[in-house]
Parts: sequence; structure tokens; C-alpha cells
Amino acid sequence: MNQGYTTYFSPRFSETDGLGHINNTVIPVWFESARDPIFKIFVPSLEIAHWNLILAKISVDFKAPTFYGSEVKVITSVSRIGNSSFEVHQKCYQNDELTAEGRTQMVHFDYETNRSQPISKEIRAQLEQLAD
Amino acid sequence: MNQGYTTYFSPRFSETDGLGHINNTVIPVWFESARDPIFKIFVPSLEIAHWNLILAKISVDFKAPTFYGSEVKVITSVSRIGNSSFEVHQKCYQNDELTAEGRTQMVHFDYETNRSQPISKEIRAQLEQLAD
Amino acid sequence: MNQGYTTYFSPRFSETDGLGHINNTVIPVWFESARDPIFKIFVPSLEIAHWNLILAKISVDFKAPTFYGSEVKVITSVSRIGNSSFEVHQKCYQNDELTAEGRTQMVHFDYETNRSQPISKEIRAQLEQLAD
Amino acid sequence: MNQGYTTYFSPRFSETDGLGHINNTVIPVWFESARDPIFKIFVPSLEIAHWNLILAKISVDFKAPTFYGSEVKVITSVSRIGNSSFEVHQKCYQNDELTAEGRTQMVHFDYETNRSQPISKEIRAQLEQLAD
Repeated sequence: MNQGYTTYFSPRFSETDGLGHINNTVIPVWFESARDPIFKIFVPSLEIAHWNLILAKISVDFKAPTFYGSEVKVITSVSRIGNSSFEVHQKCYQNDELTAEGRTQMVHFDYETNRSQPISKEIRAQLEQLAD
Repeated sequence: MNQGYTTYFSPRFSETDGLGHINNTVIPVWFESARDPIFKIFVPSLEIAHWNLILAKISVDFKAPTFYGSEVKVITSVSRIGNSSFEVHQKCYQNDELTAEGRTQMVHFDYETNRSQPISKEIRAQLEQLAD
Repeated sequence: MNQGYTTYFSPRFSETDGLGHINNTVIPVWFESARDPIFKIFVPSLEIAHWNLILAKISVDFKAPTFYGSEVKVITSVSRIGNSSFEVHQKCYQNDELTAEGRTQMVHFDYETNRSQPISKEIRAQLEQLAD
Repeated sequence: MNQGYTTYFSPRFSETDGLGHINNTVIPVWFESARDPIFKIFVPSLEIAHWNLILAKISVDFKAPTFYGSEVKVITSVSRIGNSSFEVHQKCYQNDELTAEGRTQMVHFDYETNRSQPISKEIRAQLEQLAD
């Protein structure tokens, strides 16, 4: 059972490549965009000047080509919550086929002290609602 | 009076640049994506193998910065219809402010003979419904 | 006679689109990158915190498709110098064929006061050396 | 001891994001571009119509921010060679600091039969010369 939330994307002509598919480098772009609701948990205003997240690692498995001309659905959930870091799990579907699946390691970060910082109880509770 | 149709975009974090705005090179990407309904007039299936359009020229006026964190609305209309070419007129708004305005010269094109081809009466009628 | 300077690009696979060419939205990206030496005239450190330029308008004429697999050469010159603004003229060649030509209106800008500012005599002299 | 080959990139202004760094989604783009010499082993002409590779998985560890204004060096090597698949290992350095490290799973693929195909002895020999 996959919980979390859903984001829709219209693949762009400019996102295709010469093979006639969506280029693989586009999937991390969609996944980052689909993390907006998670960004909002940490930075409710989405003001970049108040940013407090850092990306430590991404991985993406490509299962099938994704095409231009048909809507894409990304399901985003939280698959691990640590002391100061957490993992986001994302699945990209087109016409009910899973075309890509990714995991992103994020760290709650203080850009002023340049250090990771613990995730507060309140934020943790919101992330837990997105657990898969 | 601006007719045409409206497309919405969620600016992506990856589309910002170091100045904290959406980078200027992103606006042509949104405008191309917002031309999808026009592409559908020429290529109803949106199958790239059947593509019959070529882009001859783009111009974009930047009126104000566009930001991450707030939805963008692009209004697309057709501002000129010639024998084999036409001009698309697009306006990008964020929070009711016009942030960019562009014009794109498109040519109905036969990729097999490598030549422009006249716009049919039926397609012309559909483009006219988008006239601004 | 085209003076100015030359920048080379290796077209990227991810920059192609389903038509098998470099997507049109990539040319403004290369042109912006090829303006780096002009940015250095205004911001010698290239530190974004000291940025003092704004982009007012771009236009690009597409003359022929550009392909993956063969180096691209962009020639950049300055085609107009006004009081606080100037125009950059850029030509993109692949295998000695002109594939795209663009003009960019730039404004010398003070991000603190949010106003354009005159181009100094010293900067003007450097821009004049790039005149086409 | 890291063998392989080196590719240089000039970070582009458009590749920065609002945090003032190169956006994380750009690193896979550079890594794909730096795989061109590997693509050439499989498709000497680099003609997309003859493409015979598929990307199965990417992962990237972000070690430090990468900035605009200073050249980037990517070292690419081959870290595993299987029957029909192989792994590419890439490291991104800026000013001698490792800023990102990635691994890409590639599969030798026949787009006509839609199946993976064994890596020939000759190609294998060339990949082995890039072993890390």
C-alpha cells in the first residue's frame, strides 16, 4: 500500500531526447518538483532565503521509457525518518505503468552554521503522515 | 482583449538561478510546453514521428522577475496566420503581473521533402479560433 | 567581418529532442553560457552576490538544425552600446554552417536600488573591443 | 588509483539555483555528457538512429556544493563489466574538491528486438581500458 501524495506532470517536448523518450536526466527534475509539499513542511513560505534542506543522495531506477504526449503521475512518500535526515521515495507512472522509481536522501540543514540539525517533533509528525 | 487559452505551470526549484528568480532560459521552455494545444492541431496524436512543424524564430521580452513558490499562468494566442507559417503570442503572468511576453514563428513543414507546406483550410479555421 | 570571441560547446545527448536535433530551447542556454566573458567585464569575480546585469529581451533565429555528435562554435560580439544598456549578437555554427543567430538586450542594473545605471567609461571601452 | 578519462565543464549561470549553487539535477546531465566517449565505443558515429544502449539506474552522492565561475572536472571510469551490462563510475571535482560522485548502470540493448544483448569481445576490451 503506497500512501503519500500525487503530483501530475505534462511531459514537455523539450524533455524528450533523440530516442523519442523523455531523457533520463528529466526524471530527477520532476522528482525534485514533486518534493515541493515536503519542502513546504520545512519552509512553509517556500522562500529560498529560509531554505533548510540539503540533498545528500539521489538514485533512480529506470523501469520503462516515459513518453511525450501523455500525462505522468508521481507518487511521493517518506520511507525513512532519522534524527536529522530522511528518505523520500518516488514512483513515476504513465498510463498505469511504473516507468521510474527513485529514492532521495535529504538532510535538515542550517546554512548559517553549515551543519545538519535535528528534525523537530512537529515536522516529524508531518513527515510520518507521508510514510509509505 | 486577449483570447486564446491558458496553461498553468508550477515553477520548479531547479528552474531558479543564483539571483533567486526563474532563469530567463526557462521561459522559452514553458512557452514551448504551452504550445502543446497548437501542436495537437497539427499533430493530433502528438506522435513525434508525424511531426510537421518547425520553429523559425522566438523572441521573449522580460518584464519582471518570475519566482519559485507561486503558480504561473501562460496565455497563448495566434497573432498571425500566413500561407505556410504563423505566429504564436504568449504572455506569462504570476500573481496577475505580466512577467514575460513572447512571439514564436512556426512553419508548417514536411520533414520528408524538407519544405514548408501550406496550412490547410481546416487547420487555419482552428488557428483562427485562437486569434488574439 | 565578425569580431568578438568564440566559445565551443559539445552538444549533450540530453539536449536533443524527439526530432533528433538539439531542442530549440537549448540555444538560449548556450548563448547565455557564451556571454560569460561579458559577464566578467561587469562582474570580474563572477560572484552572483555582486551581479549587476539584467536581461531585457532575447531573440533567436533558427536557420538550420543543430545536431548531437559534432562540436558547436558560438561567436559573440557586441552590436550596440547605449547609456545603460547594450545588445549582444551571437551566431551558432556547426560544421561551418550557421544554425542559429541571436540578439540579447542587457541592462546594467543595480539590484539594491532596482534601477538601471549608466555604463562606465572603462566598461564601455571593453565592450567596444567586442563590437561587430 | 583512478584511471579512466577526464572531461571539463564550464558551469552555466542557468545551471545554478536559488541557493547560489549548481542545482543537483545538473550533475546527472554533466555525467551523461561525460559518457560520450563510452557512447562512442558502442556507437562510433554517435548517430542516434544506431543507438544500442539503455540506462538502467543512476545514483549520485552529493559531497559538497558546486559553484558557477570555476571549471569542473569529471573523471569517468568503468567499475563493472557484466555479460550485457556495465557500470560507469564518475567523480566531479571543482578546485580539487570532490563535489559529487555517481554510478550509472548501462545495458547493451537492441532497440529492434527490445532486448539486452551481450557485450562483444572487442567492446569489452575497450571498456576494460577504462577500468578503475
